Amino acid sequence: MSVAPTLLDRARRGEVTPEMVAAGRAENVEPEFIREGVANGTIVVTRNRVRQNVEPLAIGAGLRTKVNANLGTSKDRADLEFELEKLRVAEAAGADTVMDLSTGGPITEIRRAILKRTRLPLGTVPIYQAAVEMVNRGHPFLDLTGDDLFAAIRLQAEDGVDFVTVHCGVTEESVERLRREGRVLDVVSRGGALTVEWMRYHEAQNPLFEFYPRLLEIAREFDLVLSLGDGLRPGCLADATDRGQIQELIVIGELCDRGRDQGVQVMIEGPGHVPLHQIEANILLQKRICHGAPFYVLGPLVTDIAPGYDHITSAIGGAIAAMAGADFLCYVTPSEHLRLPSVEDVHEGVIAARIAGHAADIAKGIPGAIERDLAMAQARKRLDWEQQIQLSLDPARARELRESSPPLEDDVCTMCGELCAIRHGKVSKSS
Amino acid sequence: MSVAPTLLDRARRGEVTPEMVAAGRAENVEPEFIREGVANGTIVVTRNRVRQNVEPLAIGAGLRTKVNANLGTSKDRADLEFELEKLRVAEAAGADTVMDLSTGGPITEIRRAILKRTRLPLGTVPIYQAAVEMVNRGHPFLDLTGDDLFAAIRLQAEDGVDFVTVHCGVTEESVERLRREGRVLDVVSRGGALTVEWMRYHEAQNPLFEFYPRLLEIAREFDLVLSLGDGLRPGCLADATDRGQIQELIVIGELCDRGRDQGVQVMIEGPGHVPLHQIEANILLQKRICHGAPFYVLGPLVTDIAPGYDHITSAIGGAIAAMAGADFLCYVTPSEHLRLPSVEDVHEGVIAARIAGHAADIAKGIPGAIERDLAMAQARKRLDWEQQIQLSLDPARARELRESSPPLEDDVCTMCGELCAIRHGKVSKSS
Repeated sequence: MSVAPTLLDRARRGEVTPEMVAAGRAENVEPEFIREGVANGTIVVTRNRVRQNVEPLAIGAGLRTKVNANLGTSKDRADLEFELEKLRVAEAAGADTVMDLSTGGPITEIRRAILKRTRLPLGTVPIYQAAVEMVNRGHPFLDLTGDDLFAAIRLQAEDGVDFVTVHCGVTEESVERLRREGRVLDVVSRGGALTVEWMRYHEAQNPLFEFYPRLLEIAREFDLVLSLGDGLRPGCLADATDRGQIQELIVIGELCDRGRDQGVQVMIEGPGHVPLHQIEANILLQKRICHGAPFYVLGPLVTDIAPGYDHITSAIGGAIAAMAGADFLCYVTPSEHLRLPSVEDVHEGVIAARIAGHAADIAKGIPGAIERDLAMAQARKRLDWEQQIQLSLDPARARELRESSPPLEDDVCTMCGELCAIRHGKVSKSS
Repeated sequence: MSVAPTLLDRARRGEVTPEMVAAGRAENVEPEFIREGVANGTIVVTRNRVRQNVEPLAIGAGLRTKVNANLGTSKDRADLEFELEKLRVAEAAGADTVMDLSTGGPITEIRRAILKRTRLPLGTVPIYQAAVEMVNRGHPFLDLTGDDLFAAIRLQAEDGVDFVTVHCGVTEESVERLRREGRVLDVVSRGGALTVEWMRYHEAQNPLFEFYPRLLEIAREFDLVLSLGDGLRPGCLADATDRGQIQELIVIGELCDRGRDQGVQVMIEGPGHVPLHQIEANILLQKRICHGAPFYVLGPLVTDIAPGYDHITSAIGGAIAAMAGADFLCYVTPSEHLRLPSVEDVHEGVIAARIAGHAADIAKGIPGAIERDLAMAQARKRLDWEQQIQLSLDPARARELRESSPPLEDDVCTMCGELCAIRHGKVSKSS
């Protein structure tokens, strides 16, 4: 094991590092709050030890809900400029992190270009590159070895990736539980599906589980945050909260402990497709079983039947999840289930997830969350349109809609015109 | 009072009317379920006695969550063809009702044209027409009399309007409670604001409250559903669930009893802008204070800072509200707070509200709700793209996105390509 202390080691020793100071400043909390959260595992600070240009980001309990935007090529569309444009748009829309999920084109080159261009923490799913490169060398991906997988993780860590999704909880035990119960949609996580197929073909345990100490060693060396992926997450409402999902969560909870024991920061990934009334229980279960580890959710999508609008189905689920304690929302774009997202999709996805996170932050009483809403209400009262636009989550969109429909009288809008309620409805003490 | 029995009279006598049969058929429930709900006031069936072409619609406890789309001109844009186009788009997107909130152009003519074109129940806010016509005759709207207001309600009822929003709970008492506590945004309901200004100017009680029996008489005559409007609803998160709002709700609860006593069907309107964590309490309060009357909510919007995206902020709030018991969602479009909605906005608004309602119906266990999601999951498992598109809430959108990005291999999509999880992740018993 690497002897250089990790942020978790330092936090436990009571040390407030520059990363904790920077992350605390960005959150308007004391650095000590960050240190304490890191020490007890309820907060992670993402920053790879070798990466120079990253702004350390704290994710976890008591902090603003964060939003991730997925980038990445596929075999169908592998274009570096397109990826960099999506990066630019994700940053402008206010993403807190990005993940590069590239599976097409020169994957290493794309990752390095993204790392160079952004100060946001970058995450990856290393098994994608390992699988794709095996195929590109003319082999079935099933020829992958555990060594290949660890080599891919190391390569990406050396490049400066700050957190990696690793599907360590896809084990013989959790897959067997899933198989026995049966499922409508089986495995819908790409990394989970590849792992399951590999395990069945080789009749072998998942190397990321079997050789978990090797993973922890790499994580220590780069102070990489492990994002323990839910490879068995439900892909439809009917599969939500089933035995396979919860069995994997229990395994992940144990792996979370083992990571922390080695000074490795860990967060946990969660579903997926979950009916509205099961979301709170899912968050509670994760927080309990993983001893308060930060929870990173994909959605949850609250219905399966709205392709083209899954940024909305996941904003609904994400808001409830974050209110119940989820810390980190992975955006879902309008193109989910249909195609690789466009630049516009990236924008819409980030904004929808930010709305969900912000609404939840108000509900959770995160310091500073409600203030902007209050300022907006005051600007509305004054019919101060410029201020309303400035305070909007997406000022350009607000301006565009207002200017597209100029009112006859400047101080109102074309919805109500002279019947504007703000003009007529003054009753409070000051008026 | 009119002696012709209303649907509520009949339901109480144990009579299952053709309207209840039709509404029950549309919901896949027994007509007796509808009758019982109407009799005890937890369901309303909207259909004006004189209207010939309406499909009776049941709204309330145990039924599918319904969605309303607001149409209507303003002084800035009064164009009948534009309204009829929005009507067509609202119907195609799956709205259950429409409201004509016109305040510009020939209001009566527009309403009659809409009534002629649609089989959906139509709602209105009669005070708008009364106020606008007073202004058009060269008077300040403050010259309105109670008689004018009742005449507008009667005129619209005679035209066949099925439900009307009436702000009867804006009383001297509730406004005084609001005034004493103070508010950031005062009154933001257009009808509420006009009523408050009128009351202050005349130093008089709200005629819709003072002469409530006159309103009940008109409602009986046409079997009009009264939608008791929340004129004091909060216009920002900071004002939510305050004394003025709750005082008005108590008054509305009493008015609800008085309506039912006279055989008049009543539903209740609700906020508005409400933080995520206060939504459930708001629904519980309404259901308790109004003895289970159907609840028709506008939003709730869970943040104030997302103009341009308020279809999303309200889909989040609407889903939680409907899960907690709200029965009827008024759509909010991306243009809310900025301009009169465009045709595209109407489409987006209806779809977002339908997503919210459907997600809640699954959570509430409404019979039939989850089946379509299950069929979608099965189509995904089969990689049957045509079926996925057909099962989508908006098939045209789903098709457009998929076809815009054709995959190299037909059975996958450009998100994952050959790494498609559905291809690789087969584990359950059948595979």
